[in-house]
Formats: sequence, structure tokens, C-alpha cells
Amino acid sequence: MMGGGLTATANRVRFGIQSAHEIVETALHELETRDHAWHCTTRLLSERALRMADTVDARIKDGDQVGPLAGVPFGVKALFDLEGITTTAGSVVLKGNPPARRDAAVIQRLIAAGAIPVATLNMDEFAYGFVTENAHYGTTLNPHDPTRLAGGSSGGSAAVVATGILPFALGSDTNGSIRVPAALCGVWGLRPTQGVLPLEGVYPFASSLDTVGPLAARAEDLRCVFEAMSGTPVADIDDVMSFRVARLGGWFAHDLPPALLEGLDRIMAFFGSSHEIELSGVERARSAAFVISASEGGNLHLPRLRKCPMDYDPATRDRLMAGALLPAAAFIQAQRLRNAFRNCLRELFKTTDILIAPTVAGVAPRINASTILVDGKSVPARANLGILTQPLSLGGMPVLAAPLAPHPNDAEPRLPVGVQLIAAPGREDVLFAAARALEQAGILGYLTLATS
Amino acid sequence: MMGGGLTATANRVRFGIQSAHEIVETALHELETRDHAWHCTTRLLSERALRMADTVDARIKDGDQVGPLAGVPFGVKALFDLEGITTTAGSVVLKGNPPARRDAAVIQRLIAAGAIPVATLNMDEFAYGFVTENAHYGTTLNPHDPTRLAGGSSGGSAAVVATGILPFALGSDTNGSIRVPAALCGVWGLRPTQGVLPLEGVYPFASSLDTVGPLAARAEDLRCVFEAMSGTPVADIDDVMSFRVARLGGWFAHDLPPALLEGLDRIMAFFGSSHEIELSGVERARSAAFVISASEGGNLHLPRLRKCPMDYDPATRDRLMAGALLPAAAFIQAQRLRNAFRNCLRELFKTTDILIAPTVAGVAPRINASTILVDGKSVPARANLGILTQPLSLGGMPVLAAPLAPHPNDAEPRLPVGVQLIAAPGREDVLFAAARALEQAGILGYLTLATS
Repeated sequence: MMGGGLTATANRVRFGIQSAHEIVETALHELETRDHAWHCTTRLLSERALRMADTVDARIKDGDQVGPLAGVPFGVKALFDLEGITTTAGSVVLKGNPPARRDAAVIQRLIAAGAIPVATLNMDEFAYGFVTENAHYGTTLNPHDPTRLAGGSSGGSAAVVATGILPFALGSDTNGSIRVPAALCGVWGLRPTQGVLPLEGVYPFASSLDTVGPLAARAEDLRCVFEAMSGTPVADIDDVMSFRVARLGGWFAHDLPPALLEGLDRIMAFFGSSHEIELSGVERARSAAFVISASEGGNLHLPRLRKCPMDYDPATRDRLMAGALLPAAAFIQAQRLRNAFRNCLRELFKTTDILIAPTVAGVAPRINASTILVDGKSVPARANLGILTQPLSLGGMPVLAAPLAPHPNDAEPRLPVGVQLIAAPGREDVLFAAARALEQAGILGYLTLATS
Repeated sequence: MMGGGLTATANRVRFGIQSAHEIVETALHELETRDHAWHCTTRLLSERALRMADTVDARIKDGDQVGPLAGVPFGVKALFDLEGITTTAGSVVLKGNPPARRDAAVIQRLIAAGAIPVATLNMDEFAYGFVTENAHYGTTLNPHDPTRLAGGSSGGSAAVVATGILPFALGSDTNGSIRVPAALCGVWGLRPTQGVLPLEGVYPFASSLDTVGPLAARAEDLRCVFEAMSGTPVADIDDVMSFRVARLGGWFAHDLPPALLEGLDRIMAFFGSSHEIELSGVERARSAAFVISASEGGNLHLPRLRKCPMDYDPATRDRLMAGALLPAAAFIQAQRLRNAFRNCLRELFKTTDILIAPTVAGVAPRINASTILVDGKSVPARANLGILTQPLSLGGMPVLAAPLAPHPNDAEPRLPVGVQLIAAPGREDVLFAAARALEQAGILGYLTLATS
């Protein structure tokens, strides 16, 4: 449906070739008739979306300026406020809350750019998981293989983009919740620099690590959406071959399947680099992010856990309760490690422009195979799919999760695997420039559904 | 000995009327022969101090420029690094540490201004207390009544200034550790704006609340020392009568003895104000400061508490252990309250220049009367003497602890009581201008020892 990407769609609308109404109606119809196969959505916003589409169409008729995303439909993870409905954050605990009085700040910006929210999307309860297995709203299935997980916690967002029904969606990423499902569903996702996008109207998880960001089918679309969300254009960088690129070793080089190894090799070869860096303190950084998330999440939910514990998803409840009981000494130690880790990264980015690492060390696990292998040990998928994304969250840098393009030698369609491109805080421009070059070179790119 | 204040002393040295050697030798001799009565000092720095005095004298002879504190001796709380000796922080736990390789940053600045450290001063172990009862180094007695506490944790610093032997001393203030002993010993003390003075070379307690500052016999001396410590002159403000002054009610107005009430009335009358403000959330702010101090202190000491718990002062050990066990959820809640409290104060200081409050709601407790009355309930002095200083620490504002001058109607010498003058962050200039005016008006001022 979205041939030519966001800008082409918006241009068709702006020039009256296709109406926003028709685009939004088609998207809603597709979601209504096909989503049961994957369970990406939790709610359709049909009435409001069609009304907004009509407004866009009327403004175009009147010759008004409409934004660069005019008439482009999108979905939002169920933790973003949408005016007039109660934000669930994937739970039933918040059901008694009043409807949101306004849209989340980033949604307001997207609407101002002409985009139209059409659905809320499934997630792990309160964003606390990497699987999108939700006791209340069900499990989101991976569009590339519905016997497998979509990843999480922004699983509905990644999966709906993978189906091709919506060109982009919004997610949130505390420890990897955009990057993990992006990798497992074969789409693009951005965890922006910590603090660069406003979190007003987004239900928090661990506020010192929370970010929001877009997922999309194309690097260029991801960039357009990020520009609208941040309100600032991303600078163009032409000379990508001058980037100093290094690959992360050690912690990031274990258990990698051949497709991922080959992809990493191709990226390094593209930039003519064989530099490998072993980041010190990664394992501790991951533990620190774990402790901070559990503590901050535990603090946030403690009053409600005391009042209505049995309303929580069991998998979330136990982790939040444990988090609320962590000793302050451990939390403070985690903050100290965070400072040390950030200082170490600041030094590193003085001599490096991009770090490359896998996003998840494998393909999407099968549903109900609730464990994955890490260094030969079987560990819970819910907590450990983010083992390669979580330590990077602690650093605050922007991370672009990119799908490896199918290799010409692939005998048959394979399941998605993805890589993380990491830059210094504020340098999303470096990431988008590299992504565009690697997409054009056929090294990175959206994996079309084998079934579609 | 210090007739005319610091500047007069330094001028006598600069103009060759008195040698730094003589001044320092006298101070050392007085400490050696008289300090046993109060137990302010834990170590004399005789050799180094005399060597430094000789250097000052030699430079003056050579016609070199010497600083505004030339030849002025001072003492430092035992948690400041002094080159060549091991910093104890009032404990025996750190005995095995190597000697400090350089002086603490603020001491370097004072030495550059010509001042000469002559002694380390007694404190509560690791600064965790308001009493200066130290299991290893003994109890510091109040020079105004040696059957009473000097207050703490900078008890040695306040007491040595009260004796008149040293014109100023350095302390640290996390929850009131400069202000409480300043009040009980009848001297001036400053808790500067959080973050304005460097903490390099100061043994930490609760790093997000720690500050260092001076104690002195005169407001003008306090200002000179603060200028040397900060490296920036304090702006002069002549029009003190335009200050918008308010007195803190509620939490700050309980259990006040007549001398304190009368003093507060006189200050308010001086400024022609009867404005009283009840600061919201003070009790919670105090609890938050408590939780943050215990948690950060507990985190800092946990590795050593595991290794050598019995080397700690029992009163400190138990509190640090309890602190290390506090749940992270409580610590995070305290940080949230801190943000809310700071926002509320920021608003308040838009319409107010100075807030006035008592420092301690009474005179120094008797030694071994380890409890004080708060709202009719008997509570431990060690933890509760700072009940009026601790919530203000959470706000990060500068607070000047000022002794109430003896009242002309006083029938006999009374024990010291003091008030806090509080300004917006960075506005030490407002505090010093008000202090000077109130000192000149005879409302605030150092209490001469009845026995001297």
C-alpha cells in the first residue's frame, strides 16, 4: 500500500491524487480484517482518524498548507496519551483513570505534520518485557512467522510495520523496547538520544531511562518521522566514507548466528574498517540498567501494587514487586556505574563516529519457548532478549536498530536479524547518513513478508 | 587574640606589625594548653603550620604580594584532606589509607589567600550526627557550658571558634552539620549554595547533599573566608531595607524558647515585616533528606561495613547499616519529593529575598542527656538536633546560621541560640548584606564566653 514511502504518500495527498480519507479508510479496513492473524492492535481509532483525514482533505481543497506527513496513518504503542481515551499502558490497572485530556506531545507534533493516528498497539504490560506476551491483551505474533514472538515491549508497533499495513508506528525504549522488536520483525527503529524527545503524555516505566521513538519500514521514513517528532531537521552528511566505524566485540560478539556475522562483516567492509572495540564494564552496565529500571518501576507502581496486586500481569507484578524491594545501596551503586560508563563512552566517541553491534543475538524465539540461550545457559526470554540493547540504554546515546537486508545468496526467505548503529549523544544525523548509505548498498533493509 | 577580625590580623601581618610566625605559634600554644577543656582538636599541624607561617613572613620581607588572609590560622574538620596526613573523617576505619597527596581544593584556595591550617577538629564519625560525641576521639564540650554538647557534626569547628582561639574554621554541612553547632556555640556559619564550592579532597557523607563552608566569629570574617573559598567576591548590597523578608511558621515555629522568639521578632521588626510563610511539605522534605542521607551513606560504606563493622562508632554503624538496607523505592520517592520541594522554593523566592527561621529550637542539650524534646516527645539528640536545618538542605539554597546577640535586658549571660537566614540559590550576597546590617544593629552577634 505504501509504495514509495511516506513522502510519496503525503505528496499524493497534497497534490490531490489520493485522499487522506481513502488512505486512512484502507488502513483501518486492513487492520480490521487482517490483524487477527498477528494481534498487533488493541484498539482502532476509526471515528477520530476518519474525521482527521477529512479535515486534512478539506484543508487541501481550501489551498491550506499541510505538513510533510499529510494523510499518513500510524499506530501508537498503548502507553501514549490520545485525547478522549484512557491510556492503558497494556494493563487493566489504569482502567478507572479518566480519558486523556490531550494527545502526548510527540503525537501532537506528528498530527501537526499531517499524520493521523489510527490504532493503539499491543505491548508488554507497563513496557516491562521484551516479548509482548500480555496477560490481558494477548500475544503479538511475528508477521514473518506467526509461531514466533514479535519481541517487545513495542511488539505491536514493530509487527504492524512488518505487516505493511501501517508505514510507521511509535514505540518507547527503556532498555531496548523499540530495538528488540524492530530486529525480530525486520523493521527500522530509533531509540533517540536520551532527553531529545518530550515524554509528556507517555506513561512512564523507568523515567531516567525512558525514551520514545519511531519504527518504520524505510530508513528515510524513520528519519522523516523523527524530524516531525523532534521539530528539527536532521542535518545531511554526504561524506559517510569518512566515518570512523568500529564493531563492538566481547559481550556483543557471543552466540551470533551466521546471517548476523555475515551482515556485520559486510557493514565493516563497506566502511573499510576492521576496528573492533571491547567496551569495558558492559556486563555491569547491563546490571545497572536492570537495577535502575526495576527500582524506578517499583517505586512508580508501589502504591498500586499495595492496593490491587492481582490486577497486574503476573509476569510484570513479580518483577515490579522485586524492584520495589531492591536496596537503595544497589540503586545508588547503579547510578555511580552509570556515570562511569557515560564518561567512558564520551571518551570513546572522541575517536569513533559509529559503533556497530547486533541487536538480538538470533532470530525471534518461538512462542511458549519462553527461554533463550545466552552463553549456553537457558534464561527467560522476557528479561533477556534485550541483553545487547540494555547496556547501551545506560549510555544515553542514540541507537538506530536496522534490519539486515536479505543476502542475494539466501536460498530461501530467512527470519529477520538486525544490527544497532550507535553514535554520540545528539548525533542522529550520523546514524541516518550511515543508514541511508547502507540501505542503498543493499546491506540494510526491510525484509518483505514471505507470505505477502 | 583576634581583635578587629581577620582583615585586621592579616593587615598587621602584611604591614609587618606582627609576624605570621608569632600569630600561628600563639594559636598552637593556646590549643596545646587550653583545648583539653573542650576537646575541639584531634591533631595539631604544628610543624607544617610554623613552616607555612615562616614562608608568609619571608614573602612579606621580600616585598611579595600576600593574600587577604595572610598569617590567619584556622582549623579544619577532620574530613578535609591535608597533604601528608591520612584523613580520618572522625573514624579509625580509614587509618590504613595512605596520606593525602594534596590539600582539599578549598584549603588550597585558603592557603593561596595566605591562611594557615593549624589543627584538625573533632566531629561525629563520618559526619553522621548532630552531637560530636565520637567513640574514638571523645566528645567536644560546649565552650559556653562544658556540661553541654557543642552540636555537630562540625562540633570541633564551632567550638574552637567559640573559644576565641581560632578566628575561623572549616566544616561540612549535609543536613545541618555547620548550622547546628554554630547555633549551639554562638558563632556564625555558612552552608553555601549546593555545588558552589568544590568538594575535591573532602571525605563524602551523602554526596547529593554535601556542602562545605566556613564558621567564624564575625559575619564580615565569614564573608572574607567564603570569598577566598569560592574565589569570587561577594557583591555589596547597600539597600538592605528593600529586602522582602518573611519568617517561616508551622514546622519552624514549634517549641521555641523566649530568647529565640524575641530574637526572631527583633529581626522581623528591623525589616519592618510581619510576613509569615508556612512552607508546604517541610516534614516530608525532612524525611526525604533523611532517607537520601542514609541511603547514600549506606551505599558509600557498605563494602567496609561488610569487612570491618566493629571498627565503626556504634552510633554511626547502626545508622549506616539501616541506610544500606532502605528500599530503592523509598530513595526514589525521596528524590521526587526533592524535585517538588525545589520547585516550590523556586516559586517562593520569586516574591521573597530572605526567609528567617530558628536553627535549633533551644540551647545546647546537656551531655549524656542524649534525647531532646520535639513537640513534647523525647527523641534522640544525635538524629534530631537538625530537625530545622535538614529540610532546608534538600532545597539547595545558601543558609547563613547567625548567633542572636545578647539582649541588653539579659540579666545574666545566657546560652547561645541562633537563626537561619535563607536566600535563593547563588544569593549569598543577600545573606551577607542582611547579616552585616543585623550585626551593626546589635540583633545578631557572637556571644563572648562568660568564662573568658
